[in-house]
Amino acid sequence: MPRINPERVLSDLRTLATFGAYKTGVHRPTLSGEDIAAREWFANRMREAGLDASIDGIANILGKSPAIGRKALSGSHLESQNYAGWLDGPLGCVYALEAARAISEDPAISDLGVDVVVFCDEEGHFGSFLGSRSFIGVLEEREIDAASNHTTKVPMREALAAAGWAGRPRHVIDPARYAAFFEAHIEQGDTLESTGLKIGVVTAIVAIWQYRFTVEGEQNHAGTTSMKRRRDAGLELVRLLGAIDTRFPEICGPRTVWTTGRIALDPGEKSIIPGEAEALFQLRDADPAVLDRLEAEIHALVQGANRNGRCKIAVERLSASTPALMDRSLQAALDRAAEAHAPGKHMRMPSGAGHDAQWLARKLPAAMMFVPSIGGISHHWTENTSNEDIVLGAQVFADGIVNALRA
Amino acid sequence: MPRINPERVLSDLRTLATFGAYKTGVHRPTLSGEDIAAREWFANRMREAGLDASIDGIANILGKSPAIGRKALSGSHLESQNYAGWLDGPLGCVYALEAARAISEDPAISDLGVDVVVFCDEEGHFGSFLGSRSFIGVLEEREIDAASNHTTKVPMREALAAAGWAGRPRHVIDPARYAAFFEAHIEQGDTLESTGLKIGVVTAIVAIWQYRFTVEGEQNHAGTTSMKRRRDAGLELVRLLGAIDTRFPEICGPRTVWTTGRIALDPGEKSIIPGEAEALFQLRDADPAVLDRLEAEIHALVQGANRNGRCKIAVERLSASTPALMDRSLQAALDRAAEAHAPGKHMRMPSGAGHDAQWLARKLPAAMMFVPSIGGISHHWTENTSNEDIVLGAQVFADGIVNALRA
Repeated sequence: MPRINPERVLSDLRTLATFGAYKTGVHRPTLSGEDIAAREWFANRMREAGLDASIDGIANILGKSPAIGRKALSGSHLESQNYAGWLDGPLGCVYALEAARAISEDPAISDLGVDVVVFCDEEGHFGSFLGSRSFIGVLEEREIDAASNHTTKVPMREALAAAGWAGRPRHVIDPARYAAFFEAHIEQGDTLESTGLKIGVVTAIVAIWQYRFTVEGEQNHAGTTSMKRRRDAGLELVRLLGAIDTRFPEICGPRTVWTTGRIALDPGEKSIIPGEAEALFQLRDADPAVLDRLEAEIHALVQGANRNGRCKIAVERLSASTPALMDRSLQAALDRAAEAHAPGKHMRMPSGAGHDAQWLARKLPAAMMFVPSIGGISHHWTENTSNEDIVLGAQVFADGIVNALRA
Repeated sequence: MPRINPERVLSDLRTLATFGAYKTGVHRPTLSGEDIAAREWFANRMREAGLDASIDGIANILGKSPAIGRKALSGSHLESQNYAGWLDGPLGCVYALEAARAISEDPAISDLGVDVVVFCDEEGHFGSFLGSRSFIGVLEEREIDAASNHTTKVPMREALAAAGWAGRPRHVIDPARYAAFFEAHIEQGDTLESTGLKIGVVTAIVAIWQYRFTVEGEQNHAGTTSMKRRRDAGLELVRLLGAIDTRFPEICGPRTVWTTGRIALDPGEKSIIPGEAEALFQLRDADPAVLDRLEAEIHALVQGANRNGRCKIAVERLSASTPALMDRSLQAALDRAAEAHAPGKHMRMPSGAGHDAQWLARKLPAAMMFVPSIGGISHHWTENTSNEDIVLGAQVFADGIVNALRA
């Protein structure tokens, strides 16, 4: 079996964390100067590992193995959320590279190979999974034409040109080349930590159903408009969110999550009754039946509010993904690897977050593996995982790939 | 008794509405070009009425009557909220001017006089009642030094210089000169309209107690953080506002109003659990005992939330005014005038909005009179009052002033 090199794994991750270092995390948005430099560095690191690496026209990196036997594809993303953690993305890239290195270094299995892939913009600075969707061949040029950075407003085409990558052809997957896709990631929750476990084997990536609630009331003076007369859009929104908060725990699934990420009142002045209110509301579950049930409840609550209240609430479903099921035999391959290195300290679990693997699963049998997040924190610069857990995860991941390729 | 000139009243109001016309309302922020022009025009209109008018160093206008007998002071403001109504402010200025004109034109009472005053920035583009506070002598130079337009960020000193008024002395009230202060205004609510009444005689201007609620939770990933583990600052705020919504109607006064004008979740992203949440919350009542009771309830609800919830809520009282009581004999003078012209169609009522009169009441016996607002709408360009109600109000107002001066 492959023997990963702990120092090499940690050193690669530490080096990546210097590109856009921010406190103990990183600020490395897609196609920022730091992201471009990190990609160039990582492509060189792939070449040093004997991979034929190139960066394509949408900043994806593909490093192809020279191995003659069965091959896996593995990778993740390198850019970060704004002012976020050092492992969300890079961990999966370095695990993939280390698996490629460790397998090629083991004479007993050096016929096996791992192609390493780094997807662009999983974190969505310019769009939604642009890199992995490009790689599986479902991203049209016009979507890239229209994409611009949500924070800086710089068009993606300009950013690609600044990196020197504009006009290059885009890598597209050759499914016949691979037996499977593997992605490793930090858990981003506290299930592993709170149960004392070390490895999560992902069963499915949950579906995300995203909604916008819009409440239309009547803007008016906060002093002169009686409570009885006012049509307060903000208050009606608070009541709806309160009703969801009361009702959903009674009908949700065991791991359903729902979140109001944004609330805006218009005009948002202290002495003006809001005439309009808006909220972004999100549901996540791996079971479409649960999502259907909760969506029906949202509509029932809104209908009740519109019947009894003084405002008009509209519900718009902005997007609704389907759960991405991970391959069962690949899950078993990861289970066996985890049992070998962390006996009894692994579990099956859904992924509450979206990942590039959900797109790759459309083309290949796919698998994901999680390592613990300290305090369950992610998308924040304090995100972290212990060195021991990082090293253990790298070994389990490499073994899991070999288990799968040998099966 | 004075006979007001309906055409003159309506024509002056229509002319003022041309300065910064916006749809059927006006956009005339304090010291904008349109506001400066409106002030110059109105000062000239004062002079045409025989008043000795001048604009001072904070853009207040004082027009002094040459009458030798008892005098009243009367006026309001000329600037508007952003994209708002044509009568909020100008109505009181034109009523004051028309009272001065009608009284001087009636030989039987031409010894009486009305000084007309136009206050700057009642609408608070630069600060809080800067004009009326200057006029009663409680505004220091350093507050003007520090004031800047909340929308454009232009310093007030610069705006005054651009108008050509910087460096002028500021008018300060001579309380010995006046028997009373009178201000007319649109009601800005629907009490008069919904009861079929024409004139409101104000008993008190309510106190406003303004709060900021701040909730500290933990920013985290909306997909990977279980409902049980998350510390959602936005949800905790929704729960607090819901508890207030449930509890306050049981303990408030008959005309108490409370408003959440702004809610902000940080970072405000669809897939991130808000780590911080903030709301601006306001209470208004004419009875300090009611306000005390509601404030105590806020603290009780917050304590309960902090004991039982997973976030930390802080309540900060940003400001707390005292109610301004209107003079009882002046209320009676307005009652009598209303009964003469609109028998049975007038009522006593508190003002839920703040007005310059609340500051003048510190120096003089003060009175306020309301006319109906169509649909109760104000602070919006659709704000309106019928011509008939405008004309009736002007007559009642002039008579009320004469009743008071003769008393």
